Amino acid sequence: MKVDIALVHYPVCNRKQEIIGSAVTNLDLHDIARVGRTYGVGAFYVVTPYEDQRALVDEIISHWLTGHGSRHNSDRKEAFSIIKVVASLEELYAAVKTAGELPPLTLATSARHCANSLGYAAVRQRLAAGERVLLLFGTASGLAAEVLAEVDAVLPPVGGAGDYNHLPVRAAVAIILDRLAASR
Amino acid sequence: MKVDIALVHYPVCNRKQEIIGSAVTNLDLHDIARVGRTYGVGAFYVVTPYEDQRALVDEIISHWLTGHGSRHNSDRKEAFSIIKVVASLEELYAAVKTAGELPPLTLATSARHCANSLGYAAVRQRLAAGERVLLLFGTASGLAAEVLAEVDAVLPPVGGAGDYNHLPVRAAVAIILDRLAASR
Repeated sequence: MKVDIALVHYPVCNRKQEIIGSAVTNLDLHDIARVGRTYGVGAFYVVTPYEDQRALVDEIISHWLTGHGSRHNSDRKEAFSIIKVVASLEELYAAVKTAGELPPLTLATSARHCANSLGYAAVRQRLAAGERVLLLFGTASGLAAEVLAEVDAVLPPVGGAGDYNHLPVRAAVAIILDRLAASR
Repeated sequence: MKVDIALVHYPVCNRKQEIIGSAVTNLDLHDIARVGRTYGVGAFYVVTPYEDQRALVDEIISHWLTGHGSRHNSDRKEAFSIIKVVASLEELYAAVKTAGELPPLTLATSARHCANSLGYAAVRQRLAAGERVLLLFGTASGLAAEVLAEVDAVLPPVGGAGDYNHLPVRAAVAIILDRLAASR
């Protein structure tokens, strides 16, 4: 399947539903890169407007791609090779526009039900038909409403057995990629 | 579904397939408790033979259940309420034997295909029929062969698109619980 993913650090919501920019979490990079690599994701974009945060991510990537880490853990090197760093959603959308191809179907993810929802089975069908998909994941308490409004559609919340709804974004990425890849 | 999960720190393998005991990772507790709580898991057992590690886990649990953390993050409190700490697989197996009930179907997980495999659809059917399931997850490079041999069956590897096979155990727990809960 032709899927790219993006982990968005701005604009996202805090617990009070105010718009904030969140800090990059080192472990998100590791876990999401490994999961992304496992499911054949093309690129894992880290979106943050903060220059020092982008420098930090670049430094971590270098450690695993060409530094000390690359000589001791080739699996991690392979995972980190899919990470790209961009400053904004605009830069992200420009980066995924491959010359001569249609722009990808851009899907946001949310822990809440949204009006412009597109189900997993429908997305699987479109992937099977060769369509490219870009998945946006929000850090902190999730993507800002303005992001949910500007995408092509929003995936239904992953949910679980009850009303507890506090999955780590790392877990949401794993579950959603597995659902989109699924034939089980 | 009636599922308990256990994160095993001994006996597990290192990268050379030697039997080791691994250290508890704080983030495993947070992520797996949140995912477990989301999917309605009964108990999340942390299995480690090391007394200082069990004391550390107890301290972290206390922070979130009765300490500072409990007053600031009730969602995390709810997640941590499912964690139990045991010293060995023997203690785990004894703990899940509820008086008057049959022992649970005990399933190991592995990144490799095993002879005594039981598929996700078959396990979903048994859960739907009301059977209890205990899932064992290995830290480090996975559960020791002796554990895979003593359980009722082993779930097929989660896998992905290709031959890259290095999912974080946190991601494997999320994906496998979603597959067992699945109707999609």
